[in-house]
Order: sequence, then structure tokens, then C-alpha cells
Amino acid sequence: MGVSGINGQSFATEPETALGQDFTSLVIQSMGPNTDPRLRHVISSFIQHIHDFARDVRLTTDEWMLGVQMINRAGQMSSDKRNEGQLMCDVIGLESLVDAITYEEAVKAHRPLTASAILGPFWRSDTPTRPNGSTITFDTATDAVVAYMYGEVTSADTGLPLANAVVDVWQCSTNGLYEQQDPAQREHNLRGKFVTDSNGKYSFYCIRPTPYPVPDDGPAGHLLSLMDRHAYRPAHIHLIVEAAKHKPVTTQIFDAESKYLDDDSVFAVKEALKVNFVPRQGDPEAKFELQYNVSLAVDPKA
Amino acid sequence: MGVSGINGQSFATEPETALGQDFTSLVIQSMGPNTDPRLRHVISSFIQHIHDFARDVRLTTDEWMLGVQMINRAGQMSSDKRNEGQLMCDVIGLESLVDAITYEEAVKAHRPLTASAILGPFWRSDTPTRPNGSTITFDTATDAVVAYMYGEVTSADTGLPLANAVVDVWQCSTNGLYEQQDPAQREHNLRGKFVTDSNGKYSFYCIRPTPYPVPDDGPAGHLLSLMDRHAYRPAHIHLIVEAAKHKPVTTQIFDAESKYLDDDSVFAVKEALKVNFVPRQGDPEAKFELQYNVSLAVDPKA
Repeated sequence: MGVSGINGQSFATEPETALGQDFTSLVIQSMGPNTDPRLRHVISSFIQHIHDFARDVRLTTDEWMLGVQMINRAGQMSSDKRNEGQLMCDVIGLESLVDAITYEEAVKAHRPLTASAILGPFWRSDTPTRPNGSTITFDTATDAVVAYMYGEVTSADTGLPLANAVVDVWQCSTNGLYEQQDPAQREHNLRGKFVTDSNGKYSFYCIRPTPYPVPDDGPAGHLLSLMDRHAYRPAHIHLIVEAAKHKPVTTQIFDAESKYLDDDSVFAVKEALKVNFVPRQGDPEAKFELQYNVSLAVDPKA
Repeated sequence: MGVSGINGQSFATEPETALGQDFTSLVIQSMGPNTDPRLRHVISSFIQHIHDFARDVRLTTDEWMLGVQMINRAGQMSSDKRNEGQLMCDVIGLESLVDAITYEEAVKAHRPLTASAILGPFWRSDTPTRPNGSTITFDTATDAVVAYMYGEVTSADTGLPLANAVVDVWQCSTNGLYEQQDPAQREHNLRGKFVTDSNGKYSFYCIRPTPYPVPDDGPAGHLLSLMDRHAYRPAHIHLIVEAAKHKPVTTQIFDAESKYLDDDSVFAVKEALKVNFVPRQGDPEAKFELQYNVSLAVDPKA
């Protein structure tokens, strides 16, 4: 240890052992016998990687404390309308990564299914169900372009249509704000749930989505600024699709003509999720239309 | 990509590339040219390790969201009296690790100096200065044992005593609570600053410290519980020692006879920081005494 152990003369004359793998192993092995096995595996790996990170960059106390302050600030900014901890993960690609892992596990077990994407922080659990063919845009911005979206929900295992599937959709207005962020929009503007008919079909009017920046007034925005990155996301619509006896899918679809497809601030774009809006004929209500079909995997547990 | 690109038929028939190193490199390389070089190094390594962690354990969306909720809850519990983000780092050994790294960097540059330890969340910036030979224990618990602590502050480079050095000390009561956590203790009980005399000497009365658990009502306590670990820390006294033209040291000294020296819940114990309380003769005010001398490195920038 290189320590001269005279009481009152506590000098350490060489580096402490805290720096090495021995210390990391000690922390990991301090877990007791009653830890859940999966949790032990996850926490052990987390401790190993966080310690390796600190050693790799020779992280200083001051730098670590800046990170702690960002974490505390993220929690303090979070509410039922905002999840800043999630957003911090999003800007370093973590939510997209765990989504891809979760999706890959689903693919392993089943036939191909609709590609998934991150939930994001603006979904609401109390979105109203609306009739097919109705609209989700009530406070339509003057620069918004209305579009008609429709499609079919099928079972990936049989290819047959699924009646009574629920298509839960949400999008922001052209100012980049979801209704819960924007006092000028009525509650539940630009969101709705649609139940497929006996042929598995759904349809509604919405707006053609536009790019917008994620909120940049918190630590996630600070992190983006430190990384010299912009906060913009490409134009997209959020979806959750659920049907009885099938696994639900959470996804985002991206306008293939949008800016920022190659540098989404939260790294959620996949080729499989790009969609093409096409001009709509003979409908004074909408300039564009989008067909989007969804295929759900059977849930073996249901 | 394995994607059948028919619009409205967005199937991904094999895993997305988000899972691999290519995705992690994309996230890291998204940083712009104006990122500070040190920060680029630190953030790049952090992203690499966090992504590697997620891949290594095949982290699922649900597991990740549990982590996000713990981070948000940590921030929400934090205040000027409590730093839960810091405590979460402490129970996985991270503060001790960055302290050891910071200390090792100091050792590289200078002669041996007093071993450091973590600050912990209970230091206060407005602690009053008290005269040498006075006490920091005012609301002394009935089960507390008073001790006399004294010593000398010297310069590590010359060995000469340092006059006007400041010894900032804090400890909790026998109920495990620091004064800001405990309405039964007056403000600044069991804390004080002492200025060394012309011979570099300081002295005060305190209590012999006792083990106590870190607060376990937040996510750090939840994490300890998940890891099947106890929350106790061995008996210790916190110190910050500062002198002009020298680098300050933040440390903790541990009663060599305490429980939990081998399984401190925040991994702060070092051999060099164990001290021996000895019986004190001829002083009705104190049953034990502790000599603790401190050696400070010259600050080359001062």
C-alpha cells in the first residue's frame, strides 16, 4: 500500500488501489445473495463500464460533479409533461439503441414485423378515441398542410387483417410544440386513437409533419450545445399500434422528403420508417395522403 | 438493410444496424468542430461505454426506462441540503474512483500529501470559524462520547508548519444525522472551521464518530436494496484543509475500531485514512483524543 501508518501522519506514498480493476470487482462483489440474477448482470455491467469510462478518460472530481449536476437538473425539470432524463438519453442515441435491441429480440422470436422506434416524451395515456375518417387537427396552424393518413393493420403470422386494432397517433404542430407544451393548442390537438374496422382499416386527417427542435432549455440542450450539435428532428408522426393476442409496436414514421433525416438529434431514423406523402386527388380537405400499413407479431404469451 | 421499401409496407426483415459499433461511431461523430477537445474525449468515451453496456446486457426498453425514472427521481429529491445524484454515484463507488484518479494526478505532480476522500453531500459553505480549543458539539447526544482532536498542518514540500491554514470539519450525531437533516440539532452543530496558529496547530472538541446509514428513502437506497446491500458507513469525520499557496485536500478519517471498515456503503475507506482514538488523561471534558496531522502540496499555479 505504500502507506506510512503512523497515526497522525497519514501519508500515502504511492497511488491507492482504488484506481484498478480490483476496486471495481470489490464494488460488484459487494452485491448480496438476494439480488435478482438479471439485475445482478445488468448492474455489474453498468458498474464495470462506468468505472472503465472514468479510468479511460482520467475523469476528475470536478468533471464528475458537472455530470451529477446535469442529472439532478434533469430530474428537477421533469414532470408529467416532460421527461428530461429520457431526452438526455435520446441525444446520445441510447433510447434508439435499446429500442433496436428490444426490436431485434422480437425479430428473433417471430416473423418480420413493423420496425419500431422510440416512444419519445410526449405520448399521453388519456388520448381520446376518434371515429375513422375524422380529424386530429383542430387548431390548424396557418402554415400547416393537411394530409389524409390511412392503412391496414394485419397479423404478421397470417397476413390477415386485424379488426379492432388500436392505432394511437400523435404529432406536433408546425411551431414544433406538442399540445401539452403549447397553451395555444386545445387539449389533445393533433392526437387521437383509431380502431380498425372489420377489414383492419383505419383512416384520419392530420397535418403533414414538419421538422422541429427538441426542448433545448435543460441539460439535454446544454449537452447538445457542448457537443456543437443542433437540436432538430426530421418531420415525423408517432404511432403505437395494438391488437388483441399480438405484440404492440411503438414507432415513428418519417417524411422521406424532410430535412434532418441524416442528422436527427435523437438518432431515431431507420430506412424502414421513411414514408412518402403523395398528392391527394379530389378531396378539398387534404393536399396529401399517406398509406401506412402495420404488421403485428403474434404474442406467444397472450 | 433487408427492408422491403414499398410505401405502406414498411417491414424490416433483418436486424437494424443501430445495434452495432457503426451506430455508436455515428453518434460520436455527430459532434461538431467547436466541441472543446477535452469534452469531446470525455463525451466520446461516455457514449462508447454506455452503448457497450446496453449491447453487452441486451438492455431492454423497460429496463432502460427504470433507469431513467431513477435519474429523474434523484433530481427531484435533490436540494441545497441533499444531493441524491451524488449519493447514487457513491453507492456504486464512482465518487471514490474519481477521487482516487484526482488524487493520483496530484501525487504524480508533487510529493506525498494527505490521502483524500470523497466530499459527501453534507458539507456546508457557511460553516462558522471557531477558536482553537473550543467545541463543535453543542447538542451532545446522551450516548455520544466527547473526544479532543488536534494536530499540525505542514507543507509537503518543506515539512514546515503552515500558519493560518483552515481546517473545516463536520460530522454527524450518534443518530446518524447531520444537523441539516435533524430538527433536534441547532444549526452548525458538529461542524466548524479552525485556523492554525503560528505553529500550524489546530485543536477542538468533537464527538467520537459512530457508524450510520446513508439516506435510503430515495433511488440510491432503492439501488442498495436491489443490490442486497446495507446502507451503513463506518464511523468517520469529514475534513477540508486549505492553506495559501497550497492545494486544498478533502478527506475523511475513519475510526480504526469502527464496524463497516471493510464494507463501507460508499467505498471511501483507505488504509491511510484510518486513525486511532486513544484515552485522554487529565481532561474532564473528553474521554478520548486523536492527533491528526495534515500535509498539503504546494500549488504550482498559486
